[in-house]
Amino acid sequence: MQIVGVAYGDEVRVANLSPGGGRLTVVAGVREFWADPETWLARPPTGEVVPAGEAHLVPPVLPEAQMLCVGLNYLEHAAEGSYRDQELPEYPTLFARWTRSLTVGGAEIPVPSTEDGLDWEGEIVAWVGRTLVDADPAEALDAVVGYSTFNDVTARRAQKLTSQWTLGKNADRSGPLGPMVPAGEVGDLRDGLRVRTRVNGTTVQDASTSQMIHHVGETLAHISRTLTLRPGDLLATGTPSGVGYARTPPWLLRPGDVVEVEVERLGVLRNTIVGGEHRRKLLSGPLG
Amino acid sequence: MQIVGVAYGDEVRVANLSPGGGRLTVVAGVREFWADPETWLARPPTGEVVPAGEAHLVPPVLPEAQMLCVGLNYLEHAAEGSYRDQELPEYPTLFARWTRSLTVGGAEIPVPSTEDGLDWEGEIVAWVGRTLVDADPAEALDAVVGYSTFNDVTARRAQKLTSQWTLGKNADRSGPLGPMVPAGEVGDLRDGLRVRTRVNGTTVQDASTSQMIHHVGETLAHISRTLTLRPGDLLATGTPSGVGYARTPPWLLRPGDVVEVEVERLGVLRNTIVGGEHRRKLLSGPLG
Repeated sequence: MQIVGVAYGDEVRVANLSPGGGRLTVVAGVREFWADPETWLARPPTGEVVPAGEAHLVPPVLPEAQMLCVGLNYLEHAAEGSYRDQELPEYPTLFARWTRSLTVGGAEIPVPSTEDGLDWEGEIVAWVGRTLVDADPAEALDAVVGYSTFNDVTARRAQKLTSQWTLGKNADRSGPLGPMVPAGEVGDLRDGLRVRTRVNGTTVQDASTSQMIHHVGETLAHISRTLTLRPGDLLATGTPSGVGYARTPPWLLRPGDVVEVEVERLGVLRNTIVGGEHRRKLLSGPLG
Repeated sequence: MQIVGVAYGDEVRVANLSPGGGRLTVVAGVREFWADPETWLARPPTGEVVPAGEAHLVPPVLPEAQMLCVGLNYLEHAAEGSYRDQELPEYPTLFARWTRSLTVGGAEIPVPSTEDGLDWEGEIVAWVGRTLVDADPAEALDAVVGYSTFNDVTARRAQKLTSQWTLGKNADRSGPLGPMVPAGEVGDLRDGLRVRTRVNGTTVQDASTSQMIHHVGETLAHISRTLTLRPGDLLATGTPSGVGYARTPPWLLRPGDVVEVEVERLGVLRNTIVGGEHRRKLLSGPLG
């Protein structure tokens, strides 16, 4: 099962993509869906059926959703970049994305005028389905209702201007998110899902989620000790080694490049890079 | 003029507080207001009038609003804490808050169970009223429609666990925000507004915004080169010296303490600290 968002004017509804990807069954408004995601996912999809090609796909996110992202969460990635000389952190390094930075597969991602290019970070997002306050890791993992392929596209110059990564992690349309696949069809990431990133067809990242340092349940439990997680919140679980800026010479995405993230059981997310002048063209309409 | 939010079930409306604070004129839905804030602010307030005591006040924020916060933005504050041995950054150090962390004056702020207490950070928030893409500083400053008193209450332990401050800056109800005062009534922060913080009546911060390192127009322009700012987005401009964790011995807010931030022309924001067990009681209802 693949869950996507569909824009109807300013409103977002949640839809079920047919197995071949040709049709969508629109099941609920996005707020209605996240009020009780487990019930909606357990129910056979009923609602208006529309050809997927006629729908304006967007992420099935609540506008206020909190997207927490884990940095440096694969051993070999932590060893390749600016933090390579530091000890591995005991706690997950967490940074923030606002939902405004999110988009979908197929979207064009603009390079801000201050950047030489953009960097890829193929990874997996976990969707929180229940409210979590001071949760333990088992309770937190059990609250995950689905997973999506994600590309945490990064404006490295903005990210590295100061100690805080926020600006470089929230460039316009820099977070393409694939359809949500229910957790029961995915299993436990600790058992190992293959994550690959390709740039213009060349594989640049290829790893297994079994190499993760901080796991989903532990990380969500840790977060819930400070802030309350709600249904619809997202956890981006971190990228493996192979990012562009750490290469010799560095390799960044430039206009015309095609970047793909493929995750076993979750599918392929493909996006094209465009010039910074496209930022002004994206001003109207919802995410995506 | 003071602009506040009022909760009607899950919906938020924007209201104008009467000069004495006793009555509210409900002028527009929050989305309607931020679609054209300058027109709403220029218009004499008309709408339903309700006694302020009967209203459930919340921040007048859009759920998806991006709140960017400047760290280390006063010379004496940059010199007092963990970053004191580093050179002053050329660019503003920006971190993120999600709107879920925001609340209003009068709200009780819980200390997460993993913290010894919470730290105060009295400051000023600027509200963005126009879309900004690759703006210059004058255009960006001109797009600010109002300012509010803000307390960037911080969970220091969570903030300092890793290099990224996100978790410690987004504890439940940790961001009380005062009413928005139109920019025309406030003037330019570079001319100096007095910012004071008091804990149980003792003044702990007392400074002038003329000491800011990175100013509002420059900072918004800088942000707009990477991400598009929209009406309703917020910039927290940073706190002056005098925070609790940098003191000898450290001084943190504990249950029962009352913390007040007072900013010239913007008013007083008063909150009480409560125990971590209150987190579960806050689960229902909108912000505030």
